[in-house]
Amino acid sequence: MSEKNLKITLGECLENVHAKTPLVHNITNYVTVNDVANVLLACGGSPIMSDEPKDVYDITSICGGLNINIGTLNERSIEAMMIAGLRSKELGHVILLDPVGAGASMLRTKTAQSIVESVKPDIIRGNISEIKALIKGTGTTKGVDADSADSVTEDNLDDMVAFVKEVAAKTDAVIAITGAIDLVADADVCYVIRNGRKEMSRITGTGCQLSGIATAYAVANPDNKVDAVAAAVCLMGLAGEIGWSRMQEGDGNSTYRNRIIDAIFNMDAKTLEEGAKYEIR
Amino acid sequence: MSEKNLKITLGECLENVHAKTPLVHNITNYVTVNDVANVLLACGGSPIMSDEPKDVYDITSICGGLNINIGTLNERSIEAMMIAGLRSKELGHVILLDPVGAGASMLRTKTAQSIVESVKPDIIRGNISEIKALIKGTGTTKGVDADSADSVTEDNLDDMVAFVKEVAAKTDAVIAITGAIDLVADADVCYVIRNGRKEMSRITGTGCQLSGIATAYAVANPDNKVDAVAAAVCLMGLAGEIGWSRMQEGDGNSTYRNRIIDAIFNMDAKTLEEGAKYEIR
Amino acid sequence: MSEKNLKITLGECLENVHAKTPLVHNITNYVTVNDVANVLLACGGSPIMSDEPKDVYDITSICGGLNINIGTLNERSIEAMMIAGLRSKELGHVILLDPVGAGASMLRTKTAQSIVESVKPDIIRGNISEIKALIKGTGTTKGVDADSADSVTEDNLDDMVAFVKEVAAKTDAVIAITGAIDLVADADVCYVIRNGRKEMSRITGTGCQLSGIATAYAVANPDNKVDAVAAAVCLMGLAGEIGWSRMQEGDGNSTYRNRIIDAIFNMDAKTLEEGAKYEIR
Repeated sequence: MSEKNLKITLGECLENVHAKTPLVHNITNYVTVNDVANVLLACGGSPIMSDEPKDVYDITSICGGLNINIGTLNERSIEAMMIAGLRSKELGHVILLDPVGAGASMLRTKTAQSIVESVKPDIIRGNISEIKALIKGTGTTKGVDADSADSVTEDNLDDMVAFVKEVAAKTDAVIAITGAIDLVADADVCYVIRNGRKEMSRITGTGCQLSGIATAYAVANPDNKVDAVAAAVCLMGLAGEIGWSRMQEGDGNSTYRNRIIDAIFNMDAKTLEEGAKYEIR
Repeated sequence: MSEKNLKITLGECLENVHAKTPLVHNITNYVTVNDVANVLLACGGSPIMSDEPKDVYDITSICGGLNINIGTLNERSIEAMMIAGLRSKELGHVILLDPVGAGASMLRTKTAQSIVESVKPDIIRGNISEIKALIKGTGTTKGVDADSADSVTEDNLDDMVAFVKEVAAKTDAVIAITGAIDLVADADVCYVIRNGRKEMSRITGTGCQLSGIATAYAVANPDNKVDAVAAAVCLMGLAGEIGWSRMQEGDGNSTYRNRIIDAIFNMDAKTLEEGAKYEIR
Repeated sequence: MSEKNLKITLGECLENVHAKTPLVHNITNYVTVNDVANVLLACGGSPIMSDEPKDVYDITSICGGLNINIGTLNERSIEAMMIAGLRSKELGHVILLDPVGAGASMLRTKTAQSIVESVKPDIIRGNISEIKALIKGTGTTKGVDADSADSVTEDNLDDMVAFVKEVAAKTDAVIAITGAIDLVADADVCYVIRNGRKEMSRITGTGCQLSGIATAYAVANPDNKVDAVAAAVCLMGLAGEIGWSRMQEGDGNSTYRNRIIDAIFNMDAKTLEEGAKYEIR
């Protein structure tokens, strides 16, 4: 564990979000956008959405961060992503890219790659298939889920940690690869996170929600982005555990969705610190 | 009951969905899209959404079925519906059309008719007003709800069964007309289904959700589409009954929405078989 | 309290909505649209959504009211707002404008102003920053929330009551400014409303929901629009109080969202009358 990582705790990251109420501009898909807005409010941030090219320059200027999610992208929203991305970069705002479905279509792969090249996001969060498609132009994305052939396991963990650090170095971004085991890395350090539950994959948009939260966390902790994103990933996974523990007979994925957001709403620094399961490599 | 309908039970239809996790491409309205995604996950399927003409060819190619819902249609999404529809047809995928609001506007009526003619969907699901508008160019749609003058009742049931079989023969599609009494028919047989509760109409999008589920069921049961769609209709109605039985003092339509999706998440073949209320004519 | 305001009670306003099931056309943002639809159903209305310029003329013609919300506006939806607005005006329908984010971008401010000038809405509902931006071209909107420098307080209440009446006179509209204290006014009277809870601001879209409800209330009470909008504001705030009273250990903003809509679903005239906290100035 490098000295750098001792500068801030996960709990301090959370408290900075609560103290600063970071305003996040989201250009995101219309499937999960309501949950992204509510989870940003739950975690202590504030959301605003806009995807019209003539609107986003002004809107992103008053925010602290920009969350670009390419699910349900279209020609208009792609133009808006570029305008907002370049304006945010100019202002030194935090920019996160969530390359939903990269690898599943040419348009998604190329759009994600183009955003990485021209906007140079501070953070990229996706599943392993999406990150591979983005970087290598390969990877087999099964819809918006990672292909099971592409996964981070205890067996390939050393290789995957090396891979994610390499991608982070190449893109000069914090990379978050989420799945059964989550990896959050910059070029130097990699958080290996084992929070969460498999049932979270039966809810649409837990990944999109995490991208919103991670943006807010990085905005509120600008000098410690890798730690802030790791805190967000632990928070989401831990909320999945707490939410599941409150499930009752007859409850299913719709109630589980509510309970996860509720758990984020109620999370404090102590609970996050005690519940986070991670190691740093 | 023809021999054909003994080939598969409703419970077997459900088990095939659970076993195969059908991936469904949805081009659907932004009002209820999140519920459609969550209900597809709840029923054992997997959703992907895309409505950009330059994206849908690739996306639909990796799926097993296509669910076209014309609520909140626009010029861009109509183009996407056509591209995805023709590509899906080419690949032999299951295609369902939900003609939301056909009869309520010229654009909706014409778009639905155009999709029927050029894409030739395998399944059409709507309320009686929408189906009439689609087929006859008439019918009085009250917004997105069926006009009360247009309804399937015990009194006109024989006529309606004949009508739905006729529409099925004419369109070479499975037709599902949903309301207080639901009819699911091909040219030969008609399931008359009496599951569900009237309070379901106080939740937005139960019809849209059903269309998503019906697509997944038909994908997983390609040789028994009429039975698969009937199973989906029974599932949705039974989930409405189970969800209502879990309502507590002070609960309303928002909680009811969650409980219905939860009930679908927890449904097994035995519960579906025992709870389904239908006859075959 | 002027004689005018004794013509109808808040409870009568509610009962008229329940009796008439007003059909409301919503051109609204994709963030909170599902909640707007469900809350319209909860309050006794019926929602329909459409934002395609070629669709809205027909759709709005069959409705009783039009709810225009400029959150996530785009060039297409702005064109649709104008077409639907002018058609609704022609038919004498109730039109409400919710100028989400006016003041936060040039496009939003100008679009809201343009709708006020050309469509002349019957009702305008926003936070104080949005209303100031709309009228004065000033005001500092912090994203989609009012800036804390702009607020209605007990200290500036007399000035604010005069301001809102002045805006109502100038625009010939009922003006609803919502915040910790809510003001609903026409040129002559101003309801000062003290229902609601501060935690409602931790849920996305309670304002959007209120705009939908207020449209339905005005449609069902066409001769008493200021009272109808006041009833809607009291209803929303009271539902926030009732919903909060049902919160349990571990619940957060996602569950709170459901409980508020549930409370609206279950509201009757007596509960509204007894729970409404307002004075008329």
